[in-house]
This record gives sequence, C-alpha cells and structure tokens, in this order.
Amino acid sequence: MKITCEKRELTQAIQTVLKAIPSRPQMPILSGIYIKASENTLELKATDYELSITCKIDANINEEGTIVLPGKYLYEVIRTLPGDYVEIKNNETDNSVNISSNAAQFNLLNMQATDFPIIEKLQGQINFTLKNNVFLNFIKKTSFACSTDESRPVFTGCLIDINNNNIVMAATNMHRLALIRENIGNLTNDNLKIIIPAKILNEFIHIFNSDIPEDVKISCTHNKISFSYENIYVISRLIEGQFPDYNRVIPKEFKTNVIINKSEFQSALDRVSLISRSEDYNIIHFEFIDDRVRISSDNPNIGKAEETIKVQIEGPGINISFNAKYIMDVLKAIENENFIFSFNQPLTTASIREENNSNFTYVVTPVRTKSM
Amino acid sequence: MKITCEKRELTQAIQTVLKAIPSRPQMPILSGIYIKASENTLELKATDYELSITCKIDANINEEGTIVLPGKYLYEVIRTLPGDYVEIKNNETDNSVNISSNAAQFNLLNMQATDFPIIEKLQGQINFTLKNNVFLNFIKKTSFACSTDESRPVFTGCLIDINNNNIVMAATNMHRLALIRENIGNLTNDNLKIIIPAKILNEFIHIFNSDIPEDVKISCTHNKISFSYENIYVISRLIEGQFPDYNRVIPKEFKTNVIINKSEFQSALDRVSLISRSEDYNIIHFEFIDDRVRISSDNPNIGKAEETIKVQIEGPGINISFNAKYIMDVLKAIENENFIFSFNQPLTTASIREENNSNFTYVVTPVRTKSM
Repeated sequence: MKITCEKRELTQAIQTVLKAIPSRPQMPILSGIYIKASENTLELKATDYELSITCKIDANINEEGTIVLPGKYLYEVIRTLPGDYVEIKNNETDNSVNISSNAAQFNLLNMQATDFPIIEKLQGQINFTLKNNVFLNFIKKTSFACSTDESRPVFTGCLIDINNNNIVMAATNMHRLALIRENIGNLTNDNLKIIIPAKILNEFIHIFNSDIPEDVKISCTHNKISFSYENIYVISRLIEGQFPDYNRVIPKEFKTNVIINKSEFQSALDRVSLISRSEDYNIIHFEFIDDRVRISSDNPNIGKAEETIKVQIEGPGINISFNAKYIMDVLKAIENENFIFSFNQPLTTASIREENNSNFTYVVTPVRTKSM
Repeated sequence: MKITCEKRELTQAIQTVLKAIPSRPQMPILSGIYIKASENTLELKATDYELSITCKIDANINEEGTIVLPGKYLYEVIRTLPGDYVEIKNNETDNSVNISSNAAQFNLLNMQATDFPIIEKLQGQINFTLKNNVFLNFIKKTSFACSTDESRPVFTGCLIDINNNNIVMAATNMHRLALIRENIGNLTNDNLKIIIPAKILNEFIHIFNSDIPEDVKISCTHNKISFSYENIYVISRLIEGQFPDYNRVIPKEFKTNVIINKSEFQSALDRVSLISRSEDYNIIHFEFIDDRVRISSDNPNIGKAEETIKVQIEGPGINISFNAKYIMDVLKAIENENFIFSFNQPLTTASIREENNSNFTYVVTPVRTKSM
C-alpha cells in the first residue's frame, strides 16, 4: 500500500471511527483501525462488535493494499504531523507502516489485517430515511433520560416506535420519561419498535453533525441497525426486551399548569441545589402559590437555601418535591424561553413541556418527603 | 455580625484563601473560612497549619462579629448568587448565617469561631522585598524541576539563597536542576538559605498576579516565611534539610554548544515522544551532526518515530539520549525564540540556557541506552 491524502480529512475520519474502539478492547486487533486503499478511496473501519464504524475519504492511491494500525496512536500521530498532506506506505520487509509528512517520519507496527473482523453491509427488512437535524434533535430531547445501569438493558436505550408515518422516540429510567413525536409523511409503510443503545446515539451528536440538513439512511434487522450518512456507515446492535408502554405513563390531564421562564428558574434551581446535591436524592421543594414559586432545599449538615420567582399559575397551588437532577436535565434539553410545569397531586407524576410545542413531553415522578 | 459587600470582591477573596483548605482537612474546623467583620473591613482566613492565607476586603459593616463557614460551600454559594452585592448576617437563635442577594437566601451553619486556629503575624528576623513579577518569573523558571516524592522533602521545594544582594532560586529532583539568579541592589544585608514548598509557590502564580508590578514583602524565621502582597497575607512552613550545592552540579564549560529554534524543536519533540511516552523512561535520542539534529524514539510495541531539524552546532557532534519530559518541561519555561543546548560527553550532564540570558541555567542528566 502507498497513498497520499489530506491530513485534515484523515484526522477527521480517524476521529470518527475511533468512537467504536473501547478504552479496553477485548482483543488486541480491536484496538486497531483497519485501512483499505483502493480506487482513489481510503476506507477506515473500527469495531467492538457492538458498534462498527466505517468512514471513506478521497486519497491518491499509488499502490492498493490493506493495513491495521493501533487506533489511538494513529490518531495522535496524524493529528500532530506538520504539513497539510500525509504519505502512508507499508514496508513488507519489517511489517511496519511508514507515515510521513514534511520532516516527520513514523514507523508503526502493522497488525494482521486478516485477523480484523469482517463488517458486512446490513441488509435490513425495514428501511427509512431521516434528516440528520431531525434525528439529532430526537436524540438530544430523549437520550439524557436513559439509565446507565446495565443490569436493566431496556432502560439504557432509546425506543424508536414507527406507526403510520408517526415516529416516536422515548427514553426512561422508570423515574422519568422523555418523549418526542413527529408526523413525517412517506417515512415507511412498516411498523417498527426498536431500542437503540443511548451510548451510541450520544456519539451521533458528534458524528452526524453538519451545517446543512443531510439524509441519514437507516436500515433494520431484528437485532441490528445501520446508519448511512455522507461518507460514514455505522452498524449497531439493538437492545432486546420490552419497552414500557409510554402512553400509559403520560397523564391525560393536569389540574395545575404553570408557565415558567426557563433561564430564571434554571439559575434559581442551580443555586438552591448547591445545598442538596451532596445528598443521595438531591431533593428540592417547590411551593407553587398565587403568582410565584418558592424553591427550597435543606441539608442538616450544611444549611438551607431558598429563592422565590414569579410564575403564571393556572389551577390550584401545590407543594411538591423532586430530585433536582431530574428537573435540571430536561431544562438543558429545552430551547424555548418558557416551559409548562403541570401537576395533579403532590405524589402523582408531573410533566414538563415546551411552550408552543406539543411534540415533546417529559414526565417525572415526585419524591415523597417527611412532611407528606 | 451584619455586613454588605461587593459579590465580585468577596468571591475573589474566598477563592484566594480557599487555596489553604486541603481536599481532606485533618479536622472539620479546617474546612472552614474564618470571617471577621470590623472597622469597614472583612477579613477572611483559612489554614491547614502548613499554609495560612488571609485576605482583607472593604465591606459595609452594620454590626461587627466573627463567623466560620464551610469553605467550599461558601465559595459555590457566593459565586452563583444573582446581583452585585451580598448581605451576610448571623442568626444567634439557630446558630446559622444568612447570606442573601436579590431573591436568593442561604442559611449556612456557623462553625465555632473559637475553635479556629489563631494565625499570628510572623515577626521574622530577615526581611526583604521583591517585585511580584520578578518573584513569579523565579517560580515559573524553577518550581517545575522539583520532585513530588514526599519521602525526600528537600527536593519538593525551591531553594532561595541570598548572598550580598545576589538572589538565587533553584530546584532539583536529582536528575535535573533549574536555577535562576539575579543581582538586586539593596535587597537585604543578611545572608539567607531557605527551602519553600513548591506546592505553595505554584499557588502564588494565581495569587500574586497583577498587571502592574507590586511589592511582595517577605519575612523569615528559622522555620516559617510570610508574604504580604496587596490585601493578601500568606504564612508557609519552610522545608528543613540541606539543599545540594548547585554550584558543583553546573558544569563550568561545554565542548559542544547548539543554538536551536525553540518552537520548531518543541513541535518535533512532541511528535517523536508520542511513541515513547507510554514507556517508563520516555527516552528520546538526539544525534547532533553537521547542521542538524535527528530526534528519534522507538518502542518495540508500537513502532518508531524520527524527525530532523536544522540547528547551529559549535564544536564536535554528539549522540545523546534524554527523558523527553525533562526536556519538554524546561522548553515550556523558556520564553526566548532560541535556546542553547550544551554538551560534553554522552553520559555527562548537559545544559539548556536561553539565548541572551545568562541568569537562567537548566542542567539535565542524560539516559544511558543499550547502544552506549
């Protein structure tokens, strides 16, 4: 193999596929990036079996071939090279690969390309396309609500539920649920219910980013899903199991609806939770009455905090307590100036929605406190 | 106690004294910041016995008094408060302190002020004054060369050696030595040899920072040192023990002197050490010959790297190897465009100096490699 390519493009491609290399690979070969040079294209691949990422870039191919280089070193080496172009050629005699740019020369040991797992293109039964900006918005509005507890896999992923061109994405850890739905015409004729690992979706926020909307082509089998996006191809496993029925979790109506300025509420909550956040449950109390909410917390070891802000309450006042993290997380995902906090009883689920956007719903269970 | 002060000033004062609060205080009271209000001044203190920091700010004192509040919480609370002014008043009835600003109210538990260690002003036998910019330059050019191994305390501090208005500051870990000297007229009539903990000197880089040169007033006893700077007063313990004779460590002359462009050399070294830095000794080889240096490294598990750059050699060529970290550290402390790398033999100490600045000297021991 002997090729020349742009350093910037190669760095970006390595950075993309590197996301499939775990910090402690199961086998040495899985710490490698597989690089194949043929027909003016350099194809880079990395996999940990659960996730495989392929990225293609243009290159000037003098001699075709295949190499496997240690991923993290390759990234560091290419990234720090001087100059705009990189030359890569393998040296059959000592089984090394020479990487050079200006006066800098590296010889990395070449791993056995035949040991590298074969990543075949997924031939899914169900295929559909989403715009990357739509898909990323879905991820940002839901994936934060997942659990990281691997002992209950269903809660570590986001559900995608497609039914008659209605697409729903949802995530829950059983204490809260985040859900976004949209009607996209001509999406697919098939119904679909799959759970994608949140860890992988969170990587997409960096991978599927572009200034102008581009298509993400999605294909599913019963246990795998693939994503094609520009020069990137990703295959991920799906999580097996039964996702909770989200329709049953969301209350049909609320007695009290409160319109709140997001940034004002966020700052107050941030301050008040300083006192509670070292405790296990990070409990914050909210007293909604008249035209204001009093936000407070107390910690027997440190002290107390409180702050009152103006809000707009429709319906009866209410005293209710939450884990502050569960409220802060959703506020970060909301973009509108105002949000609607809705309640029935101090011990029944409440909801947070964006003003003027009925597509997104967040449901959160309150905390029972001593005074209740 | 009842006071009002500027939030920005109070935040800065808390941040300054907080540096004396260790992450795991020996006693609960040492996690606190002592705050005394009297005569239009708020005095803040923190100590871990080894280091004590006092900072005074202006305040509007309605009622004098003394409180002790948990340092880290106090910092977080004050920093995140809304508004420009803070009101602090203690509540005798429940032994709490009320902190308020706009609509935000905190009640932090007050610790027992009488439990807080008394920090008396140091009455030193030797007193002198340095400009803060001179002192900070001394610290930056030497403290990085210290050891962090607490089992040999002498090497964890920087020596200050004053003799006939000549001041020398030096630090070593026995593999390298950094030294800066300056002649300051009217410094002091006394001779002095003390070792200050590097950990504390490194904090000064943030504390003694100002745009215009200001005086740092220094006072020493046999085992303590104090620093007065603007509104800040610091007392530190000194390290006891015998600092190595630095004059004997620095070679009197060199056979080979090489003038090198710092940034070019630094970039090349950075790249070449990618290959060696996962190894214990991070060994880099240098071949100085004709008008260039070939910088190289090899690691049997990863591969090899090399880069050649142009330099200006006076005297015979030399092959020599160093721990890359010991070279990179000093290059970060050097500000000149060029530096002078000087050698005698492959296994005797080499030196690095700034071009056009004879005050600073760095001495480093080479590494013996297989080929020697």
